[in-house]
Amino acid sequence: MSPKITGELLRQLRQAMRNCKYFSEPIQAYIVPSGDAHQSEYIAPCDCRREFICGFNGSAGTAIVTEQHAAMWTDGRYFLQASQQMDNNWTLMKMGLKETPSQEDWLISILPENSRVGVDPWIIAADQWKNMSRALTSAGHSLVAVQDNLIDAVWTDRPERPSTQLRTLGLEYTGQCISWQDKITALRTKMTERKLTWFVATALDEIAWLFNLRGADIEYNPVFFAYTIVGMNTIRLFVDLKRLSDPALRDHLQLDSPSKPELSIQTFPYESVYTELQAICAALGPKDKVWICDKASCALTQVIPKTHRSPIPYTPLCLAKAVKNATEIQGMKMAHIKDAVALCELFAWLEKEIPNGTVTEISAADKAEELRSQQKEFVGLSFPTISSVGPNGAIIHYRPLPETNRTLTMNEVYLIDSGAQYVDGTTDVTRTMHFGTPSAFEKECFTYVLKGHIAVSAAIFPNGTKGHLLDSFARAALWESGLDYLHGTGHGVGCFLNVHEGPCGISYKTFADEPLEAGMIVSDEPGYYEDGSFGIRIENVVLVVPAKPKYNYRNRGSLTFEPLTLVPIQVRMMNTELLTQKELDWVNEYHRKCREVVGAELERQGRKEALEWLIRETQPII
Amino acid sequence: MSPKITGELLRQLRQAMRNCKYFSEPIQAYIVPSGDAHQSEYIAPCDCRREFICGFNGSAGTAIVTEQHAAMWTDGRYFLQASQQMDNNWTLMKMGLKETPSQEDWLISILPENSRVGVDPWIIAADQWKNMSRALTSAGHSLVAVQDNLIDAVWTDRPERPSTQLRTLGLEYTGQCISWQDKITALRTKMTERKLTWFVATALDEIAWLFNLRGADIEYNPVFFAYTIVGMNTIRLFVDLKRLSDPALRDHLQLDSPSKPELSIQTFPYESVYTELQAICAALGPKDKVWICDKASCALTQVIPKTHRSPIPYTPLCLAKAVKNATEIQGMKMAHIKDAVALCELFAWLEKEIPNGTVTEISAADKAEELRSQQKEFVGLSFPTISSVGPNGAIIHYRPLPETNRTLTMNEVYLIDSGAQYVDGTTDVTRTMHFGTPSAFEKECFTYVLKGHIAVSAAIFPNGTKGHLLDSFARAALWESGLDYLHGTGHGVGCFLNVHEGPCGISYKTFADEPLEAGMIVSDEPGYYEDGSFGIRIENVVLVVPAKPKYNYRNRGSLTFEPLTLVPIQVRMMNTELLTQKELDWVNEYHRKCREVVGAELERQGRKEALEWLIRETQPII
Repeated sequence: MSPKITGELLRQLRQAMRNCKYFSEPIQAYIVPSGDAHQSEYIAPCDCRREFICGFNGSAGTAIVTEQHAAMWTDGRYFLQASQQMDNNWTLMKMGLKETPSQEDWLISILPENSRVGVDPWIIAADQWKNMSRALTSAGHSLVAVQDNLIDAVWTDRPERPSTQLRTLGLEYTGQCISWQDKITALRTKMTERKLTWFVATALDEIAWLFNLRGADIEYNPVFFAYTIVGMNTIRLFVDLKRLSDPALRDHLQLDSPSKPELSIQTFPYESVYTELQAICAALGPKDKVWICDKASCALTQVIPKTHRSPIPYTPLCLAKAVKNATEIQGMKMAHIKDAVALCELFAWLEKEIPNGTVTEISAADKAEELRSQQKEFVGLSFPTISSVGPNGAIIHYRPLPETNRTLTMNEVYLIDSGAQYVDGTTDVTRTMHFGTPSAFEKECFTYVLKGHIAVSAAIFPNGTKGHLLDSFARAALWESGLDYLHGTGHGVGCFLNVHEGPCGISYKTFADEPLEAGMIVSDEPGYYEDGSFGIRIENVVLVVPAKPKYNYRNRGSLTFEPLTLVPIQVRMMNTELLTQKELDWVNEYHRKCREVVGAELERQGRKEALEWLIRETQPII
Repeated sequence: MSPKITGELLRQLRQAMRNCKYFSEPIQAYIVPSGDAHQSEYIAPCDCRREFICGFNGSAGTAIVTEQHAAMWTDGRYFLQASQQMDNNWTLMKMGLKETPSQEDWLISILPENSRVGVDPWIIAADQWKNMSRALTSAGHSLVAVQDNLIDAVWTDRPERPSTQLRTLGLEYTGQCISWQDKITALRTKMTERKLTWFVATALDEIAWLFNLRGADIEYNPVFFAYTIVGMNTIRLFVDLKRLSDPALRDHLQLDSPSKPELSIQTFPYESVYTELQAICAALGPKDKVWICDKASCALTQVIPKTHRSPIPYTPLCLAKAVKNATEIQGMKMAHIKDAVALCELFAWLEKEIPNGTVTEISAADKAEELRSQQKEFVGLSFPTISSVGPNGAIIHYRPLPETNRTLTMNEVYLIDSGAQYVDGTTDVTRTMHFGTPSAFEKECFTYVLKGHIAVSAAIFPNGTKGHLLDSFARAALWESGLDYLHGTGHGVGCFLNVHEGPCGISYKTFADEPLEAGMIVSDEPGYYEDGSFGIRIENVVLVVPAKPKYNYRNRGSLTFEPLTLVPIQVRMMNTELLTQKELDWVNEYHRKCREVVGAELERQGRKEALEWLIRETQPII
């Protein structure tokens, strides 16, 4: 991986920072966040501004350019990747390490007095703006909203914003009585409870979920560019109007014959959300309140007068979407069985092919995609496949490229983290395997990671527990040996939606997470990474389900997890002597279930070699 | 325990709320926090305003009185106690339960439009004021600073503020090179690093620690009422000037012959802190910054103009105080050995006396105090002894009173949570015992609590880990059986200072805690409480020490805990079949150490019966 050459680009950007065409006075620093105007994690090519300016293309990172410096902050998943993708015009700021300054502290330490720091208000969230602005102001500087994006100004061949065809989801996927009209009604009930008159939706997955629609505007994420403003009697949808010509879609949205006036959707061009929200705000009564997520863009948030603004960390749509209904759970289970079929085939194929020395990280990833695409209702991948051999496995969010591509051998650990979008659900699974004889240290580390995975998966905890309280369970075995991993343990997973979603998760970092509830779906993915040598991660998607322990303190009820992912965990990588009887029982029971459920589907699909592989890999450990 | 009759008091308070002598317009609600002007947890009798108005005397709670309602918020430790101490003019608001509204939400739900909510700005912390004020303002109400305390207005026999004799601590207690002058110099170094010109100390334990002084103004806490303002060249101490006549004290503080001008202490009357801080702030240069804890009183914080204010969650004194030096650690160890001697004697005595039916909760607590007072350098108790039998044990912060006093028997569980102040250290220990035959359920619960205690005590975790990440370890065994406890797992412990201190702790609630560091001292005290039946808690004070596991990921280093408390944990209460081999080994090793260290001291002091008891209670479990 060779770094992007950025000297000339930085020169042009710095020129723009001094160019009074864009502002009344030059700015001394320019912040380039990684998001789009919807604060999406995955973004369309036209929004990859941070990648464009610095070369680093991971999912999280913020670049800041001053007259003299250029620095980029990212987290532990990306330290290696970022250092390889950026040239030496850039300083890598390793977030989470004690010696790394925050963006605010760094700016304050290097800026001349009374500096102006610019940022595009559409791609910075309101809460981030507030924190940054407060820190800069207290040090005598100021944060300035620059309406013209300065990266776009120097990005001559910037792609168009996508506008793909929209797909309607029927009740067989969304659940009976969960039409978009039902969701609007439920939202209005929440608005009434909180005495709010307007709700502004800006997160793309929330809008897709609300209308039971999917798009393909952003790779891996079945969403479409849109905004929505819901009042007590009106629904405004802001979207490229050309997309709304399909009769089935018009029918789904009842655009031509709404059932009730308050369920009639008014459509507007995507770009007009700003002026329309301005018009709404101009007509607000003294007690009217507008609900908006505090992660919405600063630009849109500031349209709403402060006294009428009711910012929330998670919207009611985000909370409702996180708790899956019976139909969605059934769909997720089906999707995971199909996904397991594809992976069993992949692993059986790898076992056969690796000795020939012809399989590479890229060809293995391609094969995985090909096998998944043979499954019913396959739509696409849910994120770029991480297919990594040996030292590449230690780059936590590695994506194989021709120049880094390694061959799978009998001598190195292979880590594959992959997933797909099916119309009935979203998958995300990581398996770490060795096709020859793993070293004692590799097995030892794998076993600690497995212990952590089981500790979370089998945990029983009271209703109302937040996911971050479970994070240390995943680390205890590693910690005991002085090991750890620099990423969270789990994230929420959407149902034929984004593979990462809020408001729940399992992390040492997240404190704003909402309590886990039965019906929520998260990943459980501890790991261990030995830089320059190997990476290990074991990831299942798990469903929060009620548990029935012996007692029931204060009638609170208990919860636990049920794995939705049903792919064998390689016994060859385990040092079974390090496992307790309870852990061995867990592995055997998990493998029994994989064999029973996925075996039946492999049989039905007539995939004999994969079935044989599954049966071999799920022999009980005695 | 009969509740306090509060009808007449509330009538008078409500009259004061309408009395325009105190403000320009009447107020519709009045908030009575539990703290004093220093936000102390334990407070002097003159500051017990919340207890005075509602009757509840626990350490944490906030009362709010409106024209129609009176409500009091407290946490799970105090639900039972508060419900017994308050009459039915009061509604108990159980914090931490889902259905309990926050103070803000409750006020907003019941207040008429445009209400004014009053509070004494000296006894509400700046951060609390900010949150409350923001919530009320956004709902159309306002928070009003009422300079005259309205409780004092109706409290006719309010006691005087105490002014006890001050005790100086020599370097044999504070550590070589840790004179108060060294501490001032270290503070100024921190101020220079952060470009701050002034530091305002308001927490009583920080001021006592800074000057190597102790007082007795607040029961159980060896502190004295004072404020301090430190500049780069000046030190201002605000204290009742009558206290400064003692020549030894004047010499310790070098009041008459300062070694250097910048180490000269100017003394001022306690009350003049407000006007003196005003004078300092009036003379601030444009870049001058004043450091103050965001938990300092709203009154004092607001003296500092916002642009000059640099609020912090923990002061540099709080952080420095938390990491004990070698002399302090040695002192804490000595204090815990003396404390263990007293407790071994107590338990040996109880074993002998209980069959006679003559020991009560109160007499056992008195005996514990008497035995502790025989130990060298005993100063007093570090908190009111919780001595509780059977159902009283389920009242988490129970304190025996004549009307609740139960007799210790062979049939009920006995829980004693007690501690003392010695000149060399502070102790806090809880043991739960049965002097007959505990039930299977009692043993089962005790064993889960013990598993949690061991899980924390034996945990190995990376440097930089915050204590709240360890909290779930203490609960896992209880959770697995559907049980839990509604309090945190541990708090920081001072060295001959407050038994509860920041900035570290082990709790599911605390997110602003600072990372654990070698030299910090915390408690490890999981529990289980069966309302109406029994309470169980196992508490040791533990020291954070470096650990040396097999590996050392990224050279971060690892930490673990060393128990300072050395009092046997009753084997009779354990269901040893539920313990793993590792847990059994921990218990045996802990008991070996108790026997070795405390045994030697018992022998030295010639306390034969207690020594026999210790030897019997520390037999290894095989």
